[in-house]
Amino acid sequence: MTAPSYPVIRLKPKANARALRRGFPWVFANELVLDRRTKALEPGTLAVLEDHDRKPLGVVGVTPGSKIAARMLDRDTEAVIDAGWLSARLERALALRTRLFEAPYYRLVHAEADGLPGVIIDRFGDIAVIQPNAAWADTALDALCEALVQVTGVTTILKNSGGRGRQLEGLDDADAVLAGSAPDAPLPVAMNGATYMADLTGGQKTGLFYDQRPNQAFAQRLARDARVLDVFSHVGGFALAALAGGAASALAVDGSAPALALAEQGAAAMGAGDRFATRQGDAFDTLTAMGEEDARFDLVICDPPAFAPAKPALEPGLRAYERIARLSAPLVAEGGYLVLCSCSHAADLSSFQGACLRGIGRAGRRAQLIHTGGAGPDHPLLPQLAESGYLKALFFRL
Amino acid sequence: MTAPSYPVIRLKPKANARALRRGFPWVFANELVLDRRTKALEPGTLAVLEDHDRKPLGVVGVTPGSKIAARMLDRDTEAVIDAGWLSARLERALALRTRLFEAPYYRLVHAEADGLPGVIIDRFGDIAVIQPNAAWADTALDALCEALVQVTGVTTILKNSGGRGRQLEGLDDADAVLAGSAPDAPLPVAMNGATYMADLTGGQKTGLFYDQRPNQAFAQRLARDARVLDVFSHVGGFALAALAGGAASALAVDGSAPALALAEQGAAAMGAGDRFATRQGDAFDTLTAMGEEDARFDLVICDPPAFAPAKPALEPGLRAYERIARLSAPLVAEGGYLVLCSCSHAADLSSFQGACLRGIGRAGRRAQLIHTGGAGPDHPLLPQLAESGYLKALFFRL
Repeated sequence: MTAPSYPVIRLKPKANARALRRGFPWVFANELVLDRRTKALEPGTLAVLEDHDRKPLGVVGVTPGSKIAARMLDRDTEAVIDAGWLSARLERALALRTRLFEAPYYRLVHAEADGLPGVIIDRFGDIAVIQPNAAWADTALDALCEALVQVTGVTTILKNSGGRGRQLEGLDDADAVLAGSAPDAPLPVAMNGATYMADLTGGQKTGLFYDQRPNQAFAQRLARDARVLDVFSHVGGFALAALAGGAASALAVDGSAPALALAEQGAAAMGAGDRFATRQGDAFDTLTAMGEEDARFDLVICDPPAFAPAKPALEPGLRAYERIARLSAPLVAEGGYLVLCSCSHAADLSSFQGACLRGIGRAGRRAQLIHTGGAGPDHPLLPQLAESGYLKALFFRL
Repeated sequence: MTAPSYPVIRLKPKANARALRRGFPWVFANELVLDRRTKALEPGTLAVLEDHDRKPLGVVGVTPGSKIAARMLDRDTEAVIDAGWLSARLERALALRTRLFEAPYYRLVHAEADGLPGVIIDRFGDIAVIQPNAAWADTALDALCEALVQVTGVTTILKNSGGRGRQLEGLDDADAVLAGSAPDAPLPVAMNGATYMADLTGGQKTGLFYDQRPNQAFAQRLARDARVLDVFSHVGGFALAALAGGAASALAVDGSAPALALAEQGAAAMGAGDRFATRQGDAFDTLTAMGEEDARFDLVICDPPAFAPAKPALEPGLRAYERIARLSAPLVAEGGYLVLCSCSHAADLSSFQGACLRGIGRAGRRAQLIHTGGAGPDHPLLPQLAESGYLKALFFRL
């Protein structure tokens, strides 16, 4: 196949070409010469990126209107981004997951870190859920699906367009079935000896997050014979892992009734329905009420949504994390365990830990830190992009 | 029992009493009123610490000549530091380990974080190895041993006086057998399915480090059918874990012939001697030689001693870590794994990661970061003392 002649786009003199050469994968809009020709490129166009001295840097996917105006796909300027290229990237991603996991349930592609910028693919056995969160991937979606089927053998591909990134790229939010047919019932997924029910397509779409797997496994080691409270439980992430680890009881708190219903189905499927209970409601209100009820647990986990997804939300976000710690610490029995999680990009480990300790201190408790966990290894990082991961799980003993 | 009347020592006005109230466990010499009476206290004396306004802060162990002049033992100013008090601390420490580990092989006491400042106790079944690295603990050693036997049922207690901390506290470096009798042969210890031989008392004293246990477990997941190189292997920490995980072969490099001999005994005890080899020599020289030999491995682990134990050594230490990364990266096959560890207190995660990435980059390789590990949970942290742990293990895929 002859190399297509991709259009050329060029960096401004002030752009950080050195960082790009070292592996940084993004070109910001203010670094790019946005002449009329470049501005006129369709979002998702493939192009050759040159530095200001016209030295080629690689093949990129361009989204002229986005803050991230170009994403590096291949530093080889002769690269052809076709089904074969996509297959090679997928094969490399698959090799890591096959080595790490016994069953094909994992995040298969974690965007930039797996060499497929903006692309998230979660695998549930024969089903793949793809989030093409960058314009180039949305444009190349047919080829990507073809490669995905060929490399992994999945029979069903669901497109999830709910990612925040798609808005920033000017993409629509329409979900779709790209291959096979959508499952008509929640899917049982085995992790850490527990059974989770993942609703990948239903009206509620309460899928499954794989990133907490190692932290759920660690919490499980603390769970034997314990009374467990799982706040922001979603479909029972920590609660069901604790039950599989021999917890005496587990109480899941969440604002979403459909999520709790799936958690109950999971517990029932595990034969642990009699040790499981749910409480629907706002987490802050519920924690406050439990404090007034003098409730006590041996293991409390709080895994809230991102309170500080981006920098402007950092201060209020940290105050929210502190409040979670202050409200949950009194519920932990003496010598018990408190697991506090953050999936906020903007809150680094040190600030998050500080907020947690302030909250624990204000509750009049003291803590040992026994473990710090991050996202599982099916969520690799591109070190040039993120010094540390977004997910932090702190395991305290009070 | 009547409370003993401990002598009183007092903080200077500028001392950070607030930090102490919040849980910081140390009083530095320049924060203490070192009048003649205080200076005359025997190292290891127990005392009541007061702030400058004579409000009592707690019971401390005093070492007037040390940079850390006092260590907080109990914030209860009425506390009596006797065998009963020591037993309560040990019981609390034991409860955590019993919950976490199936067999009694772990770090039982991790100093300040377990409420026993300066005291390290490693447990090997019925044998405990104690490092009393603060004067108060050296003074209270008889009571501590009594409590240790009573709480854990160990029959042998060995005193290891090799810790750097003892010099700073003005303590001797004489090892001793404090209870029972020292084992006359290396002790087999099971971890992660591997068998390690720990020489707790022999002339070479190449014991066993428990802190890398979770990182060795993670490396094991990458090891099936792999050719593994373990540099700074000591008694085979990562190499034997890899063999237990189904590695095709493992090569252990270390400067110490006795350590490698123990690694060989371990491999033989596992029935994996035919897949195991050793190479004695300086790690830098050996890595350089292997580079010249074009050697290739699927998994390479480098777990060097602390190159940057304290701040003055930070810059040369980081250069040494970079050099390790630069020399080891070329030995990793395409798509293989490189595990780089640091046990340097002075090098934080971010600087260490930076040094590793510079080294990998200078070797002409690119990396995904798939996992960041710390010390195992039998090495808890006191959050007021250390924001993050000393041990860092970065798992790269090249």
